[in-house]
Amino acid sequence: MKTQFIFLNGQFVPEDRAVVSVFDRGFLYGDGLFETMRVVNGQPFRWTQHLERLQHGADFLKIKLPFPPDALRWFVGDLIAQNEMPDSLLRLTLSRGVGPRGYSPKGAESPTLVMTLHPAPGAPVSGPASWKLITSSLRLPVGDPLARFKTANKLAQVLARAEADAAGADEVLLLDTNGHVAEASGGNLFWIERGAVCTPPLTAGILPGVTRAVIFELCQKLNLSVRETNILPAQLRAVDGVFVSLSSFGVVEAVSLDGQSLNASPLVEKLRAAYETLLCAECA
Amino acid sequence: MKTQFIFLNGQFVPEDRAVVSVFDRGFLYGDGLFETMRVVNGQPFRWTQHLERLQHGADFLKIKLPFPPDALRWFVGDLIAQNEMPDSLLRLTLSRGVGPRGYSPKGAESPTLVMTLHPAPGAPVSGPASWKLITSSLRLPVGDPLARFKTANKLAQVLARAEADAAGADEVLLLDTNGHVAEASGGNLFWIERGAVCTPPLTAGILPGVTRAVIFELCQKLNLSVRETNILPAQLRAVDGVFVSLSSFGVVEAVSLDGQSLNASPLVEKLRAAYETLLCAECA
Repeated sequence: MKTQFIFLNGQFVPEDRAVVSVFDRGFLYGDGLFETMRVVNGQPFRWTQHLERLQHGADFLKIKLPFPPDALRWFVGDLIAQNEMPDSLLRLTLSRGVGPRGYSPKGAESPTLVMTLHPAPGAPVSGPASWKLITSSLRLPVGDPLARFKTANKLAQVLARAEADAAGADEVLLLDTNGHVAEASGGNLFWIERGAVCTPPLTAGILPGVTRAVIFELCQKLNLSVRETNILPAQLRAVDGVFVSLSSFGVVEAVSLDGQSLNASPLVEKLRAAYETLLCAECA
Repeated sequence: MKTQFIFLNGQFVPEDRAVVSVFDRGFLYGDGLFETMRVVNGQPFRWTQHLERLQHGADFLKIKLPFPPDALRWFVGDLIAQNEMPDSLLRLTLSRGVGPRGYSPKGAESPTLVMTLHPAPGAPVSGPASWKLITSSLRLPVGDPLARFKTANKLAQVLARAEADAAGADEVLLLDTNGHVAEASGGNLFWIERGAVCTPPLTAGILPGVTRAVIFELCQKLNLSVRETNILPAQLRAVDGVFVSLSSFGVVEAVSLDGQSLNASPLVEKLRAAYETLLCAECA
């Protein structure tokens, strides 16, 4: 297998030398953030939006981005070229770096910034995919101030995904502590109801997905009405179609929930195709 | 400064070589656990209890401890000798190690185990200390199944500690989403009321502290009644004394909360002294 090069704090290093200290607060406390985005034709899709979300999270956690977004964008081009991976997934990880022992972030002044490339799920575009979903036993706390950032505290998502693995499912829905559907472990949830494209509101304590925002744009372009509203998992069985939106795959139709078939709507395929078209157009 | 040796997956390596892959899931997702314990006279205090808690957490997260506890205990002795730190703090970190990209823990089969020593806060025993507390703006979700394990998802604690730093306080109390006092960022909370030693119940979604359990033992020995009950932060101002229990410091009296003085009880100093006596006796 070819050696991967990894961007680590301003340098390109081979995979086996891409390491961080055991005192890095990312490793000790999950004290950091990340972004994952699709790279098509050598271009990271919606780079600006991903970096904006990262910057918001970094401001909230008071971690200083060690490179300006423009410099990072330039490094991304280099990373893609060095690895010859113009169609891939890019992961950007920011941690608070090394500091004195203890929870206090005081004295941790050298953040760690890592960028890695990964094979894309079907390049350059993924083609139609469909997933079996289950409902997780874990609940996301309503009103969690950290929910709106893509932090490196992801044990709930890890455990939820393990439930999907154990059940032979592809993805898992997490409910909030009120019993409403919040999001999938790795993406936002949408459903079609009486011609409208529906999704839980951001006030539900969910991640403001970059792909979620793109879906909103596409709905406007396609003249589809959008509704942000809560839903109970049992109600998903009655709607006209369900899909998950996420940067790695785009739009993925959900065919079943907890073993029960879900209805199919032609609007899901319409949105999926429109997403792929936009992805290819913007990255041309 | 002397080079520290660090235990990393079965080897003793100097600090600058104590590194983990940027693909370690501890770094990516906080997918791991840790324990911190006091070392006195070359002996880790309450090793068995700390390892039991680690094992429970590892069972819950389905991470296999890569060394049996007895072997780890033997390595600890070596680590203490190599670093000449018989009076110190020991941190043990277990992560799920490297696996394929994504939340699913499938395929991550080589956990990372790190042990590091840190200066103790006043060796061999800390002597009386007192802390100013504040109340955090963050809330811990009631019923969080992860709360009873010492996981590496600690952003809430990091942010709460940053609030204490900003306010010039020493520690911070986190309330739960019902408004009750849950715990301090780095320890359990106790208070004295009508001669009884009180603390929130484990059902409040708090960490079952090893020092908390030792306080219960000491209360029995000293013939003090113990009460597990909920309390609102405002009620703490009326009780007879408040303290925090934690492995690094033992018992620390709280002298103020949000700038308002707290009452002092001689029972706090009695418990603190009894704790230090037990620590020295068990580690003799």
